[in-house]
Amino acid sequence: MLLLIPGPVTTHAAVRQAAAQDYAPWDNDFREIVSRVRERVLRVAGGQPGEHAALILQGCGHFALEGACRTFVAPGGRILMPKSGQYADRIERLATEAGRVVVPLPVLMNERADPRALREALERDPSISHVALVYSETSTGIIHDVPALAEAAGQAGRRVIIDAISALGALPLDISSLPMVDSVSFTSNKCFEGLPGASFTVARVDRLEASAGQAGSWSFDLSDIHAHYRRAPGAHRFTPAAGVVAAFDVALDLFDAEGGRPARLARYTANLQALYEGVRNLGLSPSLPRELQGPVVMNVDAPRDPAWDLQRFVDGLKKRRVLISNFYNTETPSFRVGCIGAITPEDMRRAVAAMGETLTELGVHAQKAA
Amino acid sequence: MLLLIPGPVTTHAAVRQAAAQDYAPWDNDFREIVSRVRERVLRVAGGQPGEHAALILQGCGHFALEGACRTFVAPGGRILMPKSGQYADRIERLATEAGRVVVPLPVLMNERADPRALREALERDPSISHVALVYSETSTGIIHDVPALAEAAGQAGRRVIIDAISALGALPLDISSLPMVDSVSFTSNKCFEGLPGASFTVARVDRLEASAGQAGSWSFDLSDIHAHYRRAPGAHRFTPAAGVVAAFDVALDLFDAEGGRPARLARYTANLQALYEGVRNLGLSPSLPRELQGPVVMNVDAPRDPAWDLQRFVDGLKKRRVLISNFYNTETPSFRVGCIGAITPEDMRRAVAAMGETLTELGVHAQKAA
Repeated sequence: MLLLIPGPVTTHAAVRQAAAQDYAPWDNDFREIVSRVRERVLRVAGGQPGEHAALILQGCGHFALEGACRTFVAPGGRILMPKSGQYADRIERLATEAGRVVVPLPVLMNERADPRALREALERDPSISHVALVYSETSTGIIHDVPALAEAAGQAGRRVIIDAISALGALPLDISSLPMVDSVSFTSNKCFEGLPGASFTVARVDRLEASAGQAGSWSFDLSDIHAHYRRAPGAHRFTPAAGVVAAFDVALDLFDAEGGRPARLARYTANLQALYEGVRNLGLSPSLPRELQGPVVMNVDAPRDPAWDLQRFVDGLKKRRVLISNFYNTETPSFRVGCIGAITPEDMRRAVAAMGETLTELGVHAQKAA
Repeated sequence: MLLLIPGPVTTHAAVRQAAAQDYAPWDNDFREIVSRVRERVLRVAGGQPGEHAALILQGCGHFALEGACRTFVAPGGRILMPKSGQYADRIERLATEAGRVVVPLPVLMNERADPRALREALERDPSISHVALVYSETSTGIIHDVPALAEAAGQAGRRVIIDAISALGALPLDISSLPMVDSVSFTSNKCFEGLPGASFTVARVDRLEASAGQAGSWSFDLSDIHAHYRRAPGAHRFTPAAGVVAAFDVALDLFDAEGGRPARLARYTANLQALYEGVRNLGLSPSLPRELQGPVVMNVDAPRDPAWDLQRFVDGLKKRRVLISNFYNTETPSFRVGCIGAITPEDMRRAVAAMGETLTELGVHAQKAA
């Protein structure tokens, strides 16, 4: 089965098998795995040992983002947020319910957030301490220029929190060259091609230490995770999804063997290209022009045919061993297809063929794209 | 390898293999697994459909407990907490950092919390709204009489939150007969013999609905999880450790096949009995008298011999494929051994034999128990 939902992703069998073992999370052998995973993700994010720390939190990406907002932004603190789509909305809700104040910066759904508009908004409102940025907005498929946006925030003297959940591992990020960035958060199960159940944050050590005590949640206090590692290297505070962490170490072996981040981005870009061309050849319309379309997830406009039914389309693809989401995040009806995971352009061509067969089966006539 | 740490536990191979697959968490097939798991754990906790709901939260037991404190206790609300050991201390920290106030009720480390003392403390302080109770206190090995303590709280007109993390699945609980109980929380990886990465809370529906909006954390708002299931049955709000949830369904098959909770308690009790007798025969002293010793985890006093070294003892056992914790939670030095998981009294006798060999190897002379 191809998982194109676009995450959790299709994983390599070696990754899955590593999860099918019993692990003792505080045993010295497991602590070595944890320490190694932390070093490896630190490197991928461009962190420097001593200056940055990689932190593992149980659960999902939302938890890491709530942790980052709570840890680095003081209670009642104000966060400027380019409203780039549904995942920005989710950070807004996480931060708001945690008692932080989100100041929205409007962004159209078919454009990248504008660094100049961001800087102007910061200059207008000196009460804002932080900017929260979504790197790969899964609801639209657009990759925002997070390094340029972070620079703009830095020029205005503000701190930055990055959601790189479906970005890190494929899209470039060098936290060491962005000193205004407090943290970058991501998960085990997107571009790193691990299993779901662990989230990661690479953060500045000075900011972790300066932020101790303001999270208002022991579970989500990233500063406390850092302090715990200091006392007990490789030790989680609470029980982790141990198999997921061990499987992630194997996923990182495969990541390195492939050639690291640039090779992964190249493969995902080739996946997207095969998908983009393929759906156009079926007569379907990608929701974004090619130059705006990122390599992580692609929305396709729903065919304007009364025979179209998303759940039936999803079911037809599933019969053909291709799984896409049974919901959409765009304003007008669409379906979305992921390009990430342990999959190749050949897999994408197989997915496109399955789409063509399913449309025929449902009697849906796709409009030829212009 | 026998995991006696005492959790995550040793699991059955069928459970682990179910985790070694890629799952799409919002696909209809997976939603069926989620709905089935929710129904099954509801039943084990004695919940009534409609009156109670089973909620799945990503992560660990600490997260479920922070979620319960935040959801059911108003910000600034006061919680009476029998200080039964380190796991009670942890709930205190979770609640305190979340802005709730914990009122401690002292409990000696070698006694069960006293329902009468609890009721008297509640009568002295009408400002307390809730009582938080630890059922199986992993730091001491004592099982507290949670039904009697909950009744005492109910007689005083207060609400109850239960930590049944290393209890549910083996120790009896019937939430339907305890109307003062708001919630009972537990995890995938203790007495249910699943993998770590998911936590569960069975809660009263009326209390979930009445408590909407006070959690101060979207991630940990159990009321919002319930509302989400109402809109989308079987759907998580955020990405779950999907393999862990699917593996848990298999673990519940094995639970049912064994004869459910009474059979599991009988096996764990037999495990404990084999361990208790075995360590005494080695000349070691269990930390608790037999009548106070619960069937989940047992502390053994460290031998008073200068050759004793916990890490070397742990390493020696590991060579013999028995894994115990490399730390202890008692006031005086000890080691702790779990009796739960997919293990039998025969496994416990093997563990005891490994302890005997390791003590000999280290040159440790155990004191004969009186």
